[in-house]
This record gives sequence, C-alpha cells and structure tokens, in this order.
Amino acid sequence: MSNEDFNKRLFKYFDDHQKDYIQRLGDAVRIPSVSAWPDHRSEVVRMVEWTKSLMEKLGVKVELADIGQQKLADGTKIKLPDVILGTYGNDKTKKNILVYGHLDVQPAQVSDGWDTEPFVLTEKHGKLFGRGSTDDKGPVISWLNVIEAYQTLNEPFPVNVKFVLESMEEYGSDGLEDLLKSLKNTFLSDVDYVVISDSYWLGKEKPCLQYGLRGICYFFIDVESSTKDLHSGVFGGTVHEAMTDLITIMSTLVDDQGRILINGMYDDVAPLSPAEEQLYSKITFDVSTYCSEAGVKKTIQTEKEKILMHRWRYPSLSLHGIQGAFDGCGCKTVIPRHVIGKFSIRIVPNMKISTVEKLVENHVKQIMKTRNSPNKVSVKLEHGGNYWVADPNNPQYVAARKATVAVHGIEPDLTREGGSIPITLTFQEQTGKSVLLLPIGASDDGAHSQNEKFDISNYMNGMKVMSAYFQEVAKL
Amino acid sequence: MSNEDFNKRLFKYFDDHQKDYIQRLGDAVRIPSVSAWPDHRSEVVRMVEWTKSLMEKLGVKVELADIGQQKLADGTKIKLPDVILGTYGNDKTKKNILVYGHLDVQPAQVSDGWDTEPFVLTEKHGKLFGRGSTDDKGPVISWLNVIEAYQTLNEPFPVNVKFVLESMEEYGSDGLEDLLKSLKNTFLSDVDYVVISDSYWLGKEKPCLQYGLRGICYFFIDVESSTKDLHSGVFGGTVHEAMTDLITIMSTLVDDQGRILINGMYDDVAPLSPAEEQLYSKITFDVSTYCSEAGVKKTIQTEKEKILMHRWRYPSLSLHGIQGAFDGCGCKTVIPRHVIGKFSIRIVPNMKISTVEKLVENHVKQIMKTRNSPNKVSVKLEHGGNYWVADPNNPQYVAARKATVAVHGIEPDLTREGGSIPITLTFQEQTGKSVLLLPIGASDDGAHSQNEKFDISNYMNGMKVMSAYFQEVAKL
Ligand SMILES: [Zn+2]
Ligand SMILES: [Zn+2]
Ligand SMILES: [Zn+2]
Ligand SMILES: [Zn+2]
Repeated sequence: MSNEDFNKRLFKYFDDHQKDYIQRLGDAVRIPSVSAWPDHRSEVVRMVEWTKSLMEKLGVKVELADIGQQKLADGTKIKLPDVILGTYGNDKTKKNILVYGHLDVQPAQVSDGWDTEPFVLTEKHGKLFGRGSTDDKGPVISWLNVIEAYQTLNEPFPVNVKFVLESMEEYGSDGLEDLLKSLKNTFLSDVDYVVISDSYWLGKEKPCLQYGLRGICYFFIDVESSTKDLHSGVFGGTVHEAMTDLITIMSTLVDDQGRILINGMYDDVAPLSPAEEQLYSKITFDVSTYCSEAGVKKTIQTEKEKILMHRWRYPSLSLHGIQGAFDGCGCKTVIPRHVIGKFSIRIVPNMKISTVEKLVENHVKQIMKTRNSPNKVSVKLEHGGNYWVADPNNPQYVAARKATVAVHGIEPDLTREGGSIPITLTFQEQTGKSVLLLPIGASDDGAHSQNEKFDISNYMNGMKVMSAYFQEVAKL
Repeated sequence: MSNEDFNKRLFKYFDDHQKDYIQRLGDAVRIPSVSAWPDHRSEVVRMVEWTKSLMEKLGVKVELADIGQQKLADGTKIKLPDVILGTYGNDKTKKNILVYGHLDVQPAQVSDGWDTEPFVLTEKHGKLFGRGSTDDKGPVISWLNVIEAYQTLNEPFPVNVKFVLESMEEYGSDGLEDLLKSLKNTFLSDVDYVVISDSYWLGKEKPCLQYGLRGICYFFIDVESSTKDLHSGVFGGTVHEAMTDLITIMSTLVDDQGRILINGMYDDVAPLSPAEEQLYSKITFDVSTYCSEAGVKKTIQTEKEKILMHRWRYPSLSLHGIQGAFDGCGCKTVIPRHVIGKFSIRIVPNMKISTVEKLVENHVKQIMKTRNSPNKVSVKLEHGGNYWVADPNNPQYVAARKATVAVHGIEPDLTREGGSIPITLTFQEQTGKSVLLLPIGASDDGAHSQNEKFDISNYMNGMKVMSAYFQEVAKL
C-alpha cells in the first residue's frame, strides 16, 4: 500500500473515532492536575498514573523519574510529580524522535469566570472547553492516539518515539532541567530530533511552525532610603524619598515608541537579512485582529511585518511594577522606605545575558551619578533565560512543512514566539539536535485564560499532521 | 488665697495622686476602642460610656450626639459611635473654652511587635506603655483630672468648659464635620476659644505650641492602555504600555532636592517675612536626632531652620505608589492594563486647592502632549484638605505661653506640623474663634507605632499646664 493510500485510511480512521478521542481527552481533563496548587498534588500524580497506564496499554515502555522535592512557601516539602520517560520501539534502523509535553494544567475555577465547569470537557459548536484541553493534554493525547491508530490499522510505526512528559510545567518546570542533564548520555544520547507541541498558531485558520523564542532578563532595581516608612506630612520635603529615585530611574529605560534607552542595548541585535525579511512578508497576520485580541486601539508599529519583528526578533522592555510602595485603593500618605522596581527585557539573537546585565548596571549607575541622593540603589538580574532560534530550513522543519502541506494543503507560516519556553533550549543543549515547535492549537484557544478550549478540527488535523510528520522525518 | 499659692496646692495635689491618675488611664487603655476594627465597635461604645460616666460624676452635663451610620467595605452598615458633647459650668461671666479630644485608638496587637500587652497600661522607667496612652486618652483624661482636682480642693473653676469628644478620629473623623456644622448656632455659638491636645512636642524635653498645619492635595493619575493585562513576551515591543506613560509622568513631578517641578506651584507660597524667620531660629531642634528618628543618613537641607521650614511652611510632593501594577514578590511578566499612580502635595499658605488641581492637570496634559501615546490618561484630585495657620501672638497663644512658663519655667517653642489635622480648621470655621494646639506628649511617644507610651512626667506636667492655661484664658 502506498503511503498516500495508507494516509487516506489513517485519516479516515481518525475522523471515524472522533467521539472516542473526545472521550479520552474528557477523561484527562476530569483530573484537575493543577501543579500550582500543592493540595492538588495527588491529582497531578493521578494524571501521571492515568497517562502511564494508557502508554503501557499501547506498548510504550514507561519509567517514572523521581525529580525530588518541592519546597513550599511555608518551608514544608512535598514530592514533585515523577517525570514520565517513555520508549516506544527500539528498531536501530529507525529514527529516534523525542516528544515533550506536560500533564499539569493552570489553575481554574468557575468563579474565575468560566462559562462551564473547567474540569468537565464540554463540547459547544465544534469546540471542546476545559482546562488543559489545548495546554497541553490535547496535544499529548494526540501523540498517543497516533500510535494507537497505527496499531489498530496494523501498520508498522515509521520511527522510534521517546517521551518526556513532565507535570510541573505551569509552575516553572521544577526539577526538569537537572533530570535532562542527568539523562544526556543515556536516555537522550540516541535522539535524532526533538518535537514539542505546546504552543499555538499565529491565527485561527492557518497552521505554523515556530523556529524562535525570545529570552528574558528580569531586573530588580532596589532603592532604600530610611529604616522605616515615613509619614509624608511629617517628613515630606526634607528627606530623599526612595520612590523619587526609583521612578526617575524607571523613566529612563524605554521611550514612548518602545525603544530601549539603555546605551548599547541594540549593539548585539542580529541585523535583519533580506532572506529573513522575506519570511515576514509571507506570514498571514491581521493587524486589526491583533489589536482587538490585545484590546488596544493601536499598536506602536502599523505595518504587519514591523509588528511581528518587534514581537519576535527585536528586544523589548516592559515596566511591570513596584514592590514595597503603596499599591492599595484609597489615599495612603506613606513615604515607603524600601521599594523594588521590576522590569524585564526580552532578548533576541545575538544579545548576551551578561552583556545586558552589565549595560543595565552601568545605566543605573550613570543616572544615579546625576542625582544628589544618599539612597542605597542596587540592580539585580533576578532571572535570565536565553533566546532560542532554529533554522526554519533545516531538515526537520522541511519535513514538518511537508507534513503540514499533506494535511492542510498549504505551507505553514514560519513564525516565532515573543515569550520564552526555556525547556526548548535545554532539549537542544542536552541532545545537540534540532528542536521543532509544532503547534496544533489555534491562537484563540486561551491556554491560560478562562474558557480554555481546543477545536475538534484542530484535534483531528493535529493527529494527522503528527502522523505525517513521523512519516516525513522517517525519510530523512 | 493668691493664684500662686493655689497653684502650689494644686500642683502638689496632682503629684500626690499620680498613682490614681495612672490607674484611671489604665482603666481607659484596657478598653480596646479601635475605630478601624468594625468588630470592636462595642468596645468603642464602651469607651464612650466609660468617659460619659466619669464626666457625669464630675458634674459635666453630657449629651450623646448620634452621627449616623458607617458603611463598611462589604456594604453592611453599622452605627457610628456617638460624639460626647459635654458642658461644665454656665456662668455667663466666665469664658467658654471648647476642648476637643478623641476616645478611639489605632489598631494594636502584640504580634505587631509590642514589647508589652498593648491594652494593658504598663509602667517602665517612668513611661506608661499602652495603646491610646498618649493618643489621645491621656490628654482627654488630663482635662477631666483638672476639673476633679479643682472640685476636691474646693476651688471655683476659672472658665466654663465645653467638650467635644469623638471616637472615629483614627478612621477619618467620620460624621464629625457635619455634626459641628449643625451645632454652629447652638452648642458652638458661645465658644470663646478652642483648645486641642492631640499632637506632640517637637522634641522630648521642651514644650511647644503649634500654630500651623499643612494641607494636602492627593492625586490619582489614571492610565489605561488595553482591555486586559497582556503578556510581555507576546505583546512587549508592539503596544503602548500604560506603565511607560505613568512612570514618565510621575518622574516629572519632583526633583532630587524635593523641589516640585510643576509650573507655577510656588507662585502662591507666602514669602518668608523677617519676623517669621526669627521664630525658626529660636526653636530647639537637633538635626541628628531628626535623622536618626527618620532613619535616614542625611536630610535634603542641612540647616535646622531650612529643615523646619520645608516641613512646615513650604509645599512638598511625595510619590506614594502605583495601584494596578505588579506589586508582589518574584518575577511576574505582566503588562498591566490599567495603573493608577498616587502622589500628594502638602500645601501651605497661600496656596489654593483649586489652583493646585489646575496646575497638576495642566502639567500632565503638557507631558502627554510630548508623548505619542494613544492611552487614556486622566488626573483626579482624590482628596483636598486646606492648610491651617494661626497667629502665634494672638491672646490665646500668649495665655498658653504664660501657662507653659508657669509650669516648665521656659517659653514654649512656637512650631507647626507638616501633616494635617482637618478638624482644626473645621473648629475655627464653625466657631470663628482662635484654635490652639496644646500638645502635652513628647516627640518619641510613638502615637501610631508599636510601644506607644506617655511619660508620667508629661502626664503630670500636662495637667499643670492645662490648669494654668484655664487660669490664663480666664483673665483675657
Ligand atoms: Zn503548555
Ligand atoms: Zn501553559
Ligand atoms: Zn490623636
Ligand atoms: Zn492618632
């Protein structure tokens, strides 16, 4: 049977079993595996068990990796959920594909503004509403559904698959990086390609592949003026207030066009090549939809290409807030003694975290030199995560593009994300192989919002693309 | 018997009964009349009853004025504590002195960092520790002790006294202003002088009289950028962030020397006359003590006189904080959609609230004109309270100065306060008469802090000064 003929059968099989797939996803959604709620840890464990048992039924060899304990805010410790390491097939003549996904979900309760019970998968107008439906239970189950379909249709699987399924992703992937480092020379040593389906299309209609992520440098500017909070009536006008220094510093970081004002911050940004520029003009992206999704009247840039570039390939700086100042309702006349301004810079190729840190430190020092203030001012890079970028013309991407064309009949857009998925970089570093971001959900799925959903068509087409992807990488 | 001879007897009587006075203050402190805690309202009422019964025992005619209800945050309403209106004596040949004080106290619990039970008056090294000891139960009881002493010594009281004792002072004097307005032509109509003992000396050793208070204009700067909070990874670099506008505006308000940068803000400030300047040089004030009390390394001004002027007779601007931005620990990468910057300007003679409001509005408009931002920016004067200033050479002040000399042997410093006591201005407006601020507590009493205390010597000398004050105003 030709590949085309088999795919006809396979795709029909998917369509015919839509109801079963929805029910399976429903079973998964019914387990409230919220990693951010320590009192729900047993539900997270139940989700791990549920998945393990499904995988074992499909013949996937499963090992549970202990990743230690989590220290809670009150000092007590609880066990982190085990990471599932799965191995499906060990044919030396086949490629080894590593699939990453996560089984935990964001918190959710009806009172947050859900229209349906968040942990009861509810079908409405072709959409499946429920927490975790698209992030990331739907995609994870899709990978497994594909294996199952091949088995039922008695077709040999085109590749060997390795699974890394964690359950702390929504809480910072506690423990995963260390585990992957420890697996570098064992479980990860023979991986050929890594594929991750835990992101979203740029729009609602057109599929895409993602080849880049921005990194982040999150800074704290700490200003301390006195040993106690002061009353502005009693002391106002005679003391150097911490807020005056902090607000001044924060006002010198970025201008009204989003341009970062810190000296040297653009020096390492990769110049835009004509080839890269071309990628942008091909992308389907509607500016007015973007504005209405963000809820803004207008964006800083007006051209589609410029907007996308500023989301993905240029750095940006956002002022998030101030810790220690008065943040409540009403009128409190306090002079806060110790305030911490928080801002972050999204970084892009070829910026270096250490350089960014140094530039920010110098900038703050320069500003404070112009001020006659005795206050203690310090800058701290609280968190730094690197950018990640792949070549969208590398073989794995070409394979995934072919797979997309086979299912959707169009070339996927080649896009990036403005945020970071730190584990992407870790996989690349620990395997030394190409990592592909293969989203199957739509832009309006609302992964972390109320009324998270997964379109049935995305679920069905997602499995088809995943199948075709396995077939294409098998040929490489 | 000469006045001097009587005062010898009277002052000895005070000293001889120190233990009784401490016990009486202890009884009052034992009632946790915290006005900010709605569930303690019955304790506030108990404090009103306790005081009423003490006053009636002394022959003060007491009327309880109903001032209506308080609306709590959850919408429920509870009765405001009655205001005590007391009348002692109605001899038409005598002056009518109105005494104001309050019976409620600031919240307090041991866990805030008290070294002793806050509601158990505890004597240590000549200091009486307890919530309300100095603010304002000590002074209120002192006035009543004076009346009692005159009675026991069988001496006719030199003046008629009217009392206005409220019990919501620490929560904004809810309902009091309306009550006073309604009493203008009745209870208040024959008042000759108003005296308030609810503030503190400038230092720990030397008494003072206060003749001025700054007013306050509290502003909200409201900036709205989008209909929802945005993720800085996804949207950073393409949207006009509300925080960028707000921080920029806030950075243009005041410089590193505390000078207000809003055009025209100093135009109405009363020029410093040579006579006023002289008042400042006479005042006992130690700059290093001030620095250590504030917990700062150094003040903006270095000269004693300049520091005091900037606390009392020049305007100041403090940046208090931002509502709606990220204010927690850690690293949240939010772009807040709606932020409200809060700052206040302390106003002085002859600034007008309406002018200050207009100047701030114009300033913000000017700044936003220079910015290319589509965000909705508005300014609101959330609260405005006028300054108050008296002539420290008016007859009531001269009388109080003589009274102080009679007890302490020195001229009191003539000082002001940098904060506001709004009720001062209300009393002046509703009686049309001179108001005197006659503090008896020391600067380190810690009125609103942990370990609030009242020195026994201040308690005893306070009653003596109050007695001498009544004698002196009687002669006017
Ligand atoms: Zn996810
Ligand atoms: Zn997620
Ligand atoms: Zn008070
Ligand atoms: Zn108070």
